[in-house]
Amino acid sequence: MPMSADESTGKSNVAVIGLGSMGFGMASSLLRCGHAVVGYDPSGTAAAKLAAIGARIAKSPGDAAANASVVLCVVVNSAQTDAVLFGGSGVCPVMVPGSVFISSATMAPSEAKRLSSRLAERDILYLDAPISGGAAKAASGALTIMASGSPDAFEHARHVLDAIAAKVYRLGGEPGIGASVKMINQHLAGIHIAAACEAMVLASKLGLDLFTVYEVITASAGNSWMFENRVPHILDGDYTPRSSVEIFVKDLGILEDIARAERYPAPLAAAALQMYLATSGAGMGREDDASVARTYAALSGASLPSAKPAT
Amino acid sequence: MPMSADESTGKSNVAVIGLGSMGFGMASSLLRCGHAVVGYDPSGTAAAKLAAIGARIAKSPGDAAANASVVLCVVVNSAQTDAVLFGGSGVCPVMVPGSVFISSATMAPSEAKRLSSRLAERDILYLDAPISGGAAKAASGALTIMASGSPDAFEHARHVLDAIAAKVYRLGGEPGIGASVKMINQHLAGIHIAAACEAMVLASKLGLDLFTVYEVITASAGNSWMFENRVPHILDGDYTPRSSVEIFVKDLGILEDIARAERYPAPLAAAALQMYLATSGAGMGREDDASVARTYAALSGASLPSAKPAT
Repeated sequence: MPMSADESTGKSNVAVIGLGSMGFGMASSLLRCGHAVVGYDPSGTAAAKLAAIGARIAKSPGDAAANASVVLCVVVNSAQTDAVLFGGSGVCPVMVPGSVFISSATMAPSEAKRLSSRLAERDILYLDAPISGGAAKAASGALTIMASGSPDAFEHARHVLDAIAAKVYRLGGEPGIGASVKMINQHLAGIHIAAACEAMVLASKLGLDLFTVYEVITASAGNSWMFENRVPHILDGDYTPRSSVEIFVKDLGILEDIARAERYPAPLAAAALQMYLATSGAGMGREDDASVARTYAALSGASLPSAKPAT
Repeated sequence: MPMSADESTGKSNVAVIGLGSMGFGMASSLLRCGHAVVGYDPSGTAAAKLAAIGARIAKSPGDAAANASVVLCVVVNSAQTDAVLFGGSGVCPVMVPGSVFISSATMAPSEAKRLSSRLAERDILYLDAPISGGAAKAASGALTIMASGSPDAFEHARHVLDAIAAKVYRLGGEPGIGASVKMINQHLAGIHIAAACEAMVLASKLGLDLFTVYEVITASAGNSWMFENRVPHILDGDYTPRSSVEIFVKDLGILEDIARAERYPAPLAAAALQMYLATSGAGMGREDDASVARTYAALSGASLPSAKPAT
């Protein structure tokens, strides 16, 4: 039976759908741990890179999932996840009862519940498992995973989670809880990036030395994980996308949808979302999310450090 | 000459004006380091406490400053600092040329410049030296100080700064730079507290376990210094003021004044300020700044942990 992990070896047949920087890193961590990996991505480049380190490459999500006991879906949002499951050549028709679908996309809790219900009709397990950490931690198998789902889903996914994560939070027995906690993280992260940009560009407007301000703030009560991580992009004048503006257009958009449905006022998230929208609207949607600083600069005439010349 | 530090011993006569939690802690750190301290506070309680650990207590700011080489002013804002300097029984008329006035209040950079100019007319040195750290660090002599002023002012204040701070940032030769950097810190800190409240109350509205959310977020990219520090107050249902709502009504108010004068849009700070205003307007101005969470709860019907019964 190829449909469940071989408990004697702890090795699984894993399909990884979506080979962006996160999915590729997770697939490479799985290979390193000895799992058999079949990858799928619409981009031939990412697929070829994964083939070069030992994975089999499939022609469709369904093809990838054909012999997998675990399908790990690392796409951008619930619409893409839905297409991977139920679209043409999707994975749902070929997954067998008792296998597990691990969903990593950030999405509304209601979407996680809907997808898991549809899979439950066919006795396919669903793990609501958003990730935090970034490409480097994905590549080293050191992600943080905020997961919820049935004990069976956790048990069946165990070896895969062990390979990709340094820390797995088991947040509850129902899909949707993982998605909710991830939304709370994105709520804060999205505000903190925009706040870092708002404050640093004001510092420039006030004539302060931005490198000194960075040093002082990172040692003071105004610090945040995002301030520490994103402000160096501003100091370097380097807006190469590590994580793009569009990610927070999406995630704070989902957040505001949830808040509106809950009749919950979230004015800080709403203000931050406007700044991501303005930055995307000005043509920087696919650039680094620290580009919000360039919007503040454009709106105020402040100057920012320019990129270092290539050497 | 009692007017300058005794360089052979490094001990100064220091007047500490304002004996709230910060000023009291700084005064006690000075005593511990062997400086002669004269304290002044309108509250007899704070003064009596300081007398009990070895300080002389004065009847007015001017009385306190009469033989001091250093005056350390730890009041709330520029208006109080102005009154300490130039009001009835103020310190300016009794300070001698070459002595130094260390100003710790958070204020607009323009105010720091104005006060220093007035003292310069009388050859009194001015150190623009806002503080960060909180009462515990004040008491242990481990504050962070964001200071600017002339080399003479730094030199003359050196032994006092050594006694009260773990870290002194020398930000430049002109008063106003310290005030500006402190405003950037407060800009971020004020947003981060409000964001922490907005996100945690939404988490409650979504039915999440708040203790688990705190554990996950503090290990994730959504973390901030303020999230980590203030959310425990929400989890404990304990709104005893460590730092009050009114502090951020004041500081984000100054920030928005500065931003308006600079023609700088600061929508996140503006949104956060509204939440502090609403919290103060609802009667919680003197309670802990984590009370902003109670405003979000009141506006959304979310529940929050209640205070533990006194034991």
